[in-house]
Amino acid sequence: MADIFEQENKFRIWLEVETLALEQMANLGIVPESAAKALRDKGDFDVDRINEIEAEVKHDVIAFLTSVAEYVGEDSRYVHQGMTSSDVVDTSFAVMLTQAADLLIADLDKVLNALKKQIDAHEKTLCIGRSHGIHGEPTTFGLKMAGHFAAFKRAKRRMIAAKDEVSTITISGAVGTYATLDPSIEEYVADKLGLRPETVATQVIPRDRHAMFFATLGIIASSIENLSVEIRHLQRTEVREAEEYFSPTQKGSSAMPHKRNPISSENLTGQARIIRAAVTPALENVALWHERDISHSSVERTILPDACISADYALNRLANVVENLLVYPERMQHNLEMTGGLVFSQRVLLALTQAGISREDAYRIVQRNAMKVWEDRSSGKGSLSLREALEADKDVTDKLDTAALDGIFDYSHYTKHIPDIIARALKS
Amino acid sequence: MADIFEQENKFRIWLEVETLALEQMANLGIVPESAAKALRDKGDFDVDRINEIEAEVKHDVIAFLTSVAEYVGEDSRYVHQGMTSSDVVDTSFAVMLTQAADLLIADLDKVLNALKKQIDAHEKTLCIGRSHGIHGEPTTFGLKMAGHFAAFKRAKRRMIAAKDEVSTITISGAVGTYATLDPSIEEYVADKLGLRPETVATQVIPRDRHAMFFATLGIIASSIENLSVEIRHLQRTEVREAEEYFSPTQKGSSAMPHKRNPISSENLTGQARIIRAAVTPALENVALWHERDISHSSVERTILPDACISADYALNRLANVVENLLVYPERMQHNLEMTGGLVFSQRVLLALTQAGISREDAYRIVQRNAMKVWEDRSSGKGSLSLREALEADKDVTDKLDTAALDGIFDYSHYTKHIPDIIARALKS
Amino acid sequence: MADIFEQENKFRIWLEVETLALEQMANLGIVPESAAKALRDKGDFDVDRINEIEAEVKHDVIAFLTSVAEYVGEDSRYVHQGMTSSDVVDTSFAVMLTQAADLLIADLDKVLNALKKQIDAHEKTLCIGRSHGIHGEPTTFGLKMAGHFAAFKRAKRRMIAAKDEVSTITISGAVGTYATLDPSIEEYVADKLGLRPETVATQVIPRDRHAMFFATLGIIASSIENLSVEIRHLQRTEVREAEEYFSPTQKGSSAMPHKRNPISSENLTGQARIIRAAVTPALENVALWHERDISHSSVERTILPDACISADYALNRLANVVENLLVYPERMQHNLEMTGGLVFSQRVLLALTQAGISREDAYRIVQRNAMKVWEDRSSGKGSLSLREALEADKDVTDKLDTAALDGIFDYSHYTKHIPDIIARALKS
Amino acid sequence: MADIFEQENKFRIWLEVETLALEQMANLGIVPESAAKALRDKGDFDVDRINEIEAEVKHDVIAFLTSVAEYVGEDSRYVHQGMTSSDVVDTSFAVMLTQAADLLIADLDKVLNALKKQIDAHEKTLCIGRSHGIHGEPTTFGLKMAGHFAAFKRAKRRMIAAKDEVSTITISGAVGTYATLDPSIEEYVADKLGLRPETVATQVIPRDRHAMFFATLGIIASSIENLSVEIRHLQRTEVREAEEYFSPTQKGSSAMPHKRNPISSENLTGQARIIRAAVTPALENVALWHERDISHSSVERTILPDACISADYALNRLANVVENLLVYPERMQHNLEMTGGLVFSQRVLLALTQAGISREDAYRIVQRNAMKVWEDRSSGKGSLSLREALEADKDVTDKLDTAALDGIFDYSHYTKHIPDIIARALKS
Repeated sequence: MADIFEQENKFRIWLEVETLALEQMANLGIVPESAAKALRDKGDFDVDRINEIEAEVKHDVIAFLTSVAEYVGEDSRYVHQGMTSSDVVDTSFAVMLTQAADLLIADLDKVLNALKKQIDAHEKTLCIGRSHGIHGEPTTFGLKMAGHFAAFKRAKRRMIAAKDEVSTITISGAVGTYATLDPSIEEYVADKLGLRPETVATQVIPRDRHAMFFATLGIIASSIENLSVEIRHLQRTEVREAEEYFSPTQKGSSAMPHKRNPISSENLTGQARIIRAAVTPALENVALWHERDISHSSVERTILPDACISADYALNRLANVVENLLVYPERMQHNLEMTGGLVFSQRVLLALTQAGISREDAYRIVQRNAMKVWEDRSSGKGSLSLREALEADKDVTDKLDTAALDGIFDYSHYTKHIPDIIARALKS
Repeated sequence: MADIFEQENKFRIWLEVETLALEQMANLGIVPESAAKALRDKGDFDVDRINEIEAEVKHDVIAFLTSVAEYVGEDSRYVHQGMTSSDVVDTSFAVMLTQAADLLIADLDKVLNALKKQIDAHEKTLCIGRSHGIHGEPTTFGLKMAGHFAAFKRAKRRMIAAKDEVSTITISGAVGTYATLDPSIEEYVADKLGLRPETVATQVIPRDRHAMFFATLGIIASSIENLSVEIRHLQRTEVREAEEYFSPTQKGSSAMPHKRNPISSENLTGQARIIRAAVTPALENVALWHERDISHSSVERTILPDACISADYALNRLANVVENLLVYPERMQHNLEMTGGLVFSQRVLLALTQAGISREDAYRIVQRNAMKVWEDRSSGKGSLSLREALEADKDVTDKLDTAALDGIFDYSHYTKHIPDIIARALKS
Repeated sequence: MADIFEQENKFRIWLEVETLALEQMANLGIVPESAAKALRDKGDFDVDRINEIEAEVKHDVIAFLTSVAEYVGEDSRYVHQGMTSSDVVDTSFAVMLTQAADLLIADLDKVLNALKKQIDAHEKTLCIGRSHGIHGEPTTFGLKMAGHFAAFKRAKRRMIAAKDEVSTITISGAVGTYATLDPSIEEYVADKLGLRPETVATQVIPRDRHAMFFATLGIIASSIENLSVEIRHLQRTEVREAEEYFSPTQKGSSAMPHKRNPISSENLTGQARIIRAAVTPALENVALWHERDISHSSVERTILPDACISADYALNRLANVVENLLVYPERMQHNLEMTGGLVFSQRVLLALTQAGISREDAYRIVQRNAMKVWEDRSSGKGSLSLREALEADKDVTDKLDTAALDGIFDYSHYTKHIPDIIARALKS
Repeated sequence: MADIFEQENKFRIWLEVETLALEQMANLGIVPESAAKALRDKGDFDVDRINEIEAEVKHDVIAFLTSVAEYVGEDSRYVHQGMTSSDVVDTSFAVMLTQAADLLIADLDKVLNALKKQIDAHEKTLCIGRSHGIHGEPTTFGLKMAGHFAAFKRAKRRMIAAKDEVSTITISGAVGTYATLDPSIEEYVADKLGLRPETVATQVIPRDRHAMFFATLGIIASSIENLSVEIRHLQRTEVREAEEYFSPTQKGSSAMPHKRNPISSENLTGQARIIRAAVTPALENVALWHERDISHSSVERTILPDACISADYALNRLANVVENLLVYPERMQHNLEMTGGLVFSQRVLLALTQAGISREDAYRIVQRNAMKVWEDRSSGKGSLSLREALEADKDVTDKLDTAALDGIFDYSHYTKHIPDIIARALKS
């Protein structure tokens, strides 16, 4: 990914754009065939030389053209004819953006594959589902992962759409009127690059397209954060249902040799913030003055590599974390049971309601027993279970006998639809 | 738009969701047909009563259900059975979001229509195109507007996609496992509401969908800003090529009776900032803890109305500004000529190049004459024209005779492709 | 807080500003004493009437002045003489901002007091300190709270500085030249309002001051989030060291009667996002065009109440959460011990080093024993302790005897400096 | 500025911190004097070697210490004893931040000096003041610059405060309890570095301090943008009251040789967006989990150099732009007169009021004449002046004779207080 944003790659694309444009000018008979051929054959540049010239003329495209002219010689006078810098820069920018998008789409596939592996392994691995950080009802680790799988499938679709948004080029000259450039030149270059002409370029590609690209990265960043935060939670000492792979040579802390920290997931949380930091400046870049100003340019020079390199790095690291995640099903079971069956409270509520108690009364009955359990266990030492509490509550035992309670306190109720949900996620 | 976010509308939708869910429960034989019918027929609520109950139980959905029960009576015990608050809240939220999206799509059509009117009127109205705030080359006011038309066409497509993103519902119960709810209930409700079931809900709809919705609003905001900034520039005293409609009773300033300010466009610039302010919190809302937490909720309660009401207001106000914009073609012509023909500089450059002068030399020749003109006119009083300067430069007159110069200094070169670009924009 | 931003309060301040200005004009002999007296005695306004007039003239200050004139009569012709709307609006805005700041400073004191209470109660309540969500070394709950106390002390100092930033007014007329207003008028009004004249107003107060105000709110929001996230972590089922107060009539979930969720802390996390959402638009508001434009105005009308009301609400709710927080010292002790003494690992490392083993070797020895403990306990069932592991490791027992190990596995080492740190925090 | 963030500088500071800490440990008799001396004399590191080791142990501080040990030998075993990585990293981070702050404060002085130069030169250079981009009333170019001078004086004060915010260090060990480190070590190191101990460090310096630092940079960025936007406006072709220096070898456009674009100011507008992009992630960095997590670290590694290097670059470039700005007083005069005296409208209004006409009637009279002038001049060709219009209006001439009008249409009224305002700005 970093290579895409190197000067070398940028100037290579600039050269290709100039060459293609000149070829079509030759096809149109505007310039000699020999000039196009000369540029194709001898066209090259020297990055140091370009930087040297730019220091003098303070214009990067003019510096680039001068360097190219030193390779091509006399024929170079036809190069860039009637074109503005933006024709080269923005068209090349589209090439870079789509190159970056292709990498990111491939990265998303890696994350999807890693998630798929965990889904397959843990479709039926029971664990507690939590709302508000508080135990809710049982679910499976496979379903947890399937939720993230579906999110990254959406991420991929959005990335494909974002790529399409930035797949337009412009070779329309000053203020975009084609006054000095036949529109067929733009069509020819677009076609050769696998891109398409912009609807209305005002010398530049409108920046709402790029804003969409960065906003999409920002949303993907938030999905990365979401999964990373899940892993960080699962690894915290009191939970420890899963853990990032910790290599034998790794050291978790310079001071505390016992430490095994989820540093990748924490790093990914940070990467998400970096990627998202590109969104606001990208939105501020849209409102250029009249046909164009250059305020967006320095911004893009920073946020494009920052956001794309971070996103590429983050997606690869995330794929790696998920792929190698240590999952502890026994601990999941242990945690599931740590509240003494409070997780069955809704099923008790429904059973009481079906047994004829009003919803309000049933709620009160279950809640008061649940609170007893919470209280008993608040020190970490109590062992009262919800079932024990209920069995000591006449309001309950009047309505629910042992068989009924056996039917209620059964994990299989929670998992019966999970294979279908997972299947839906996998084909989403 | 404001009505959508009123408590009345919200509870109305909640009631419909509960009613539809109960209907399918009745279809499945889980609850009596009569209960579903009772809810459909007698179901109602009292907003004040809900607020009163919520103050006690600190739970809005429970408060709502209690109010409904007071209308429905005994049959209400079947309502909401096996459902969580999120099933109601998030499903209803999807209804509100798609209602808002529909309004915004209609608003975008108003802006498009207003722009179309100006494009039709000014396809050929010559004006200067500017890059960096500096005169570049001629264009037409119609083409200017066509660029914005294409941007708002993209805005509309993005809004349609954003609506689709938030068109999913969930009736899947605690932590989203359907443990207490047959999946057909969700399908039935989705179908009746014209929406679709979420792929994997974890009790809640995943917030990356909403992030996409707000990001889309943010990008539209930037397009609003872009057009508003254009109008503000056009109205500034030294430019004055266009002006917001100023009503006979309007006062521009309490102190300076001569003022006619572009206050709508300035207001729209501010609205854009407000709308965009929703993007970052929406991105921060994605990473919920485990299956869900409620941190997103207070955020959405603020940013959803703020952003949607601002966007609706802004698009309508913008449509109005564009529709009634006072356009001054004579002043455009006046400004076009204020640099004494500097705007033809590229054409001179190309002509000299074609006459055999190297690009570098030709550039120098034109630039030195252009600088003379700038200098002469820097006080605002000089009247030297580029043509006069060139005609006094032997390097030029050696290569270009009067006829050649006549051919160069001709606006029609700049407009020849404009009808095609505009046609492309209109059908985009 | 909401009252500050009501129209009533705004117009009341406007009237006071106009009245004070007129008084000084009378002192200067520019207007009759009787006019100033009339405005002071009879000056009033009607909010509905103002809105009615504004619909026609599209200018809020002119509408306000017209309504005032209807109360004051003939003398009103001297009101606002030589002033611009901004003189009234921005001066009044400063009054509102400082009113809001005062409330927020008082709110911060409430949070500080609540934290103080917990610090006093739990200075010595032992609990685990965690880095990366992983148990690190012991600390006390009082010290945890003292860290937040110090943060809110900083918050208070920043809020006082932010108030000072926005404590300037302007009565300098069009484009801020005092062409039509004697500077003594501004001085008089400032003095009476307890504020000071702006250094250079360009008709408006420069918006970097307001940006500083909102940035300060944003940073306070992040401190609110920091403490809220701590509480959410402490309350999660597996940790449960502290819990938000849960009232007897409260319901945690419509579906799961066992739920006790940290909804206040989650809400506060969301409030933090809302408050911070004001920062970026406030930064975008600084760059006005030339002497001023009105783009900042609609933004401030939204973000000022949103951010201030959220901040006021959040600080009060936070103070309440902290004040009434249920703290479970027994559970803290339970959790402290759940890793079987891994938390002493650094002390073992240091002891081995002091016993002559190289740091690298000592690290390896302790780490390998720590990893055994982690592994044994990964299911949630193992009970191997670090001390047991060490006692079975000859490399350790060669260097450390029982007495040495007794000295190492002693919590008092961790707490010896805590009273001093807390004292430092309390007087910070 | 870039040097500050190089690995070389970072490790150099790390070494100094470790050395100082060891010196105080030696003073306390905890480690041999010789060890401290050895580290001071032989302490060094090899950046490549550090990177090599880090690839294996995945911990940068451990890698650094290993490299240092290779230089120091046996004595290195005492280095870092009882310290955590954060003690080194965060203390060093404070050193870097204050180094950066010092550079930025010096940069701000450059901008202030450049502004001072323009203020001195143009205290009395008359130009139009604009609100909403529309001509308001006359001012001077010196006063314009004085407004920005005052803003950058505020920027400097804020930067000094931000430096103070980040001037704390921590050497308090794991979770910040000083369990393994005497507090005097922290005091000694702080003293030697010219910094102070953190009130309550939780292993790390609390991140609200850094948020304040970045927020301050963000506000300075907006002040940079504000001045840049002013210059861009002044340079636009229709205004052209000032212009960025354009070197003889510079080329404004590859296509249009006449172009002289305000590219520095546009670049600065972009730099402002980049700098501000650091604010939101810095705010998101505050809420770490429990005593600390590492999510802030990757963020700071990106935003700190991005924001500081951009700010340093931007302030220097801005100082340069202001210093060398080409100012065109004749054009200012030309523009001042381009509305035919509309800029005197308030003075006419006041004169009519003082002549006994009600404010409302006077407003109507002046406004109707002003509108005539606007209309006449809307094509850019009309030459009707306000004075001519007024002299043809009997409602006016009944009240104001030629002498009165002479008194009104006089620029000196607008400038009489300007020297005082400028003096106030300069000493602010």
